Amino acid sequence: MILTVDEALQLAMEEALKGAPFVSPNPKVGCVILNSKGELLSKGYHTRHGQPHAEVEALRGLTQDQLQGAHVIVTLEPCAHEGKTPSCAKALAKLPIAKVTFGLVDPNPLVAGQGAKIIRTAGIQCEEYQGPLKNKLEEICEEFLWNFREKKVFVALKVAQSLDGKIALSNGISQWITGPEAREKVHELRAQYDAVLVGKNTVLKDNPSLNIRHPNITKQNRVIIMDRKGELLKHASSLKLFQLHKPENIFLCVSKEQSVKTDLAHVIHANSLHETLNQIYSLGIRSVMVEGGGQVFSQFILEGLVQRYHVFTAPIILGRGLDWTDGIAITSMDKRSNLKPSDLRKFGDDIYFSARA
Amino acid sequence: MILTVDEALQLAMEEALKGAPFVSPNPKVGCVILNSKGELLSKGYHTRHGQPHAEVEALRGLTQDQLQGAHVIVTLEPCAHEGKTPSCAKALAKLPIAKVTFGLVDPNPLVAGQGAKIIRTAGIQCEEYQGPLKNKLEEICEEFLWNFREKKVFVALKVAQSLDGKIALSNGISQWITGPEAREKVHELRAQYDAVLVGKNTVLKDNPSLNIRHPNITKQNRVIIMDRKGELLKHASSLKLFQLHKPENIFLCVSKEQSVKTDLAHVIHANSLHETLNQIYSLGIRSVMVEGGGQVFSQFILEGLVQRYHVFTAPIILGRGLDWTDGIAITSMDKRSNLKPSDLRKFGDDIYFSARA
Repeated sequence: MILTVDEALQLAMEEALKGAPFVSPNPKVGCVILNSKGELLSKGYHTRHGQPHAEVEALRGLTQDQLQGAHVIVTLEPCAHEGKTPSCAKALAKLPIAKVTFGLVDPNPLVAGQGAKIIRTAGIQCEEYQGPLKNKLEEICEEFLWNFREKKVFVALKVAQSLDGKIALSNGISQWITGPEAREKVHELRAQYDAVLVGKNTVLKDNPSLNIRHPNITKQNRVIIMDRKGELLKHASSLKLFQLHKPENIFLCVSKEQSVKTDLAHVIHANSLHETLNQIYSLGIRSVMVEGGGQVFSQFILEGLVQRYHVFTAPIILGRGLDWTDGIAITSMDKRSNLKPSDLRKFGDDIYFSARA
Repeated sequence: MILTVDEALQLAMEEALKGAPFVSPNPKVGCVILNSKGELLSKGYHTRHGQPHAEVEALRGLTQDQLQGAHVIVTLEPCAHEGKTPSCAKALAKLPIAKVTFGLVDPNPLVAGQGAKIIRTAGIQCEEYQGPLKNKLEEICEEFLWNFREKKVFVALKVAQSLDGKIALSNGISQWITGPEAREKVHELRAQYDAVLVGKNTVLKDNPSLNIRHPNITKQNRVIIMDRKGELLKHASSLKLFQLHKPENIFLCVSKEQSVKTDLAHVIHANSLHETLNQIYSLGIRSVMVEGGGQVFSQFILEGLVQRYHVFTAPIILGRGLDWTDGIAITSMDKRSNLKPSDLRKFGDDIYFSARA
């Protein structure tokens, strides 16, 4: 079967997403190779930070004969520089392929366009994709692009709510609003971001594990707790998160006025979310997923810090209960936040909606 | 192309839905006819109350030759009795067809199975469909089935909310939460039910038209207003609904203690929602769509009166605002209302979710 460039790129994006839980801070990248007739030869993706790039995975096992006149389609411009792995552009330049199409230019201004140049210099046609999938291509490596362009932490927000917009009953009970399929998806999302972030109240109320429990993903994750007054440590012995996570993976964010000494966690001193995120960034954490509670959600939204929303809505009615945006007050419709929808799907009976800010 | 029974029934259901705005209190019914080879010969649906049934529409223009050995697939058992139109079972019995498959047995116990019997007596195979589409078949004529089985008004509830579950800002502003595509769908839904129902506060706050504004549907509709203390009439001259609807199409529901005299509307005296719905039923209104506000929504849900939810969710965040279930208070998760999802779709950027209670 002959694939169009759009179809091949669609396949490459599906490949890219397979690496989602393991590649950060690298981008998710997928690659598809078509033979000279335009038929699928192979595909591959960047599987894990430090491991070979998508192009290398897709090329694995292919002979020079097979590659004669082939078309390499990759979601991101092949890298020009040698880093943990050799330059993909240089590797491609040595092959008898006819053409390379890449989805996005490398966002690093120091190397943008250089990969393409290396390939073209070798006499291989090389072009940037321009078409309807451009937006999806950006979304697939949105954390990576954001980090490069803004030098800031990418913030995703995950909400599990009832159909009437409640994240808990008025007495605080929230387990469980969504079903097992949606909760499994949440664990997949946790793996995709560098850390989970929650407020102190959520920790005290739910005593959550905040680790990754997923049949196909084994990974230690990092946890950030907003605890301005440094109250959590008093309860550390009864809190699961301090048992389940190593101290180097726990980040306790307190105000500058607090003097906190502990072996149980890193302590971050900051008096605003901006300051907190800056310090987190400087510690190498490039993306976080905010998981609650309502006050923390509201504050992140109010300050315009959220880039991606993951909203799970269960087909249930809870009535009067806890909201996730109670800290936001607007008085006219033109002040509302309009999100840009990107995904709508069901997990079990629950609705999963994903949108960019 | 040869169609399976499931494929033909799926087509018949799509036909049935075309009649949705016009057939009440009749059921939506669709019919598909396959020739002796199993290929599509024709399709038809019940277009309007008082007009021919789906079988007649599908048979229109077909010759005896074409019908030789044909298979008639219809969503509901062909009617046995002569009503506004002749008996479909008797009409089918005279044809050279080989087989009739119907989706659901007629819910009227007085005639259930009789249509099938008439057809079988003529030597034509006739059977009730048993398969994966059974649930969808029930949903398509759920109002009709409910009316027959319960002798009660079928109640649907329509909510237009933000992603965080708000139906208005805290100052009451709600125009517009959803976009034009979703609002057009709402007008289609209005046509599908016998009346729209809203509370007094919604009328005073929004001054809504409550009529049907849809490019393909021209129909006068009925409006029911919950106005316990009979306060609305004082403002009648400035309220659009009294200008746009004829008095015989407006039903004003006040408490028994109120003595209200007016030429502008029917007055219904009742002290509970149950009483109100019973009186509405006795006036020939078989289905209503409740459109707000929050108090009315809460009361209908609390009293277990809702059969169908139509929830439109816009990808916007409104923050602190008005809820639609604020009158409901539960203290444990096992008391929550679990809905049965039946449809999830987008209208423009808005999410449309439909579920049974």
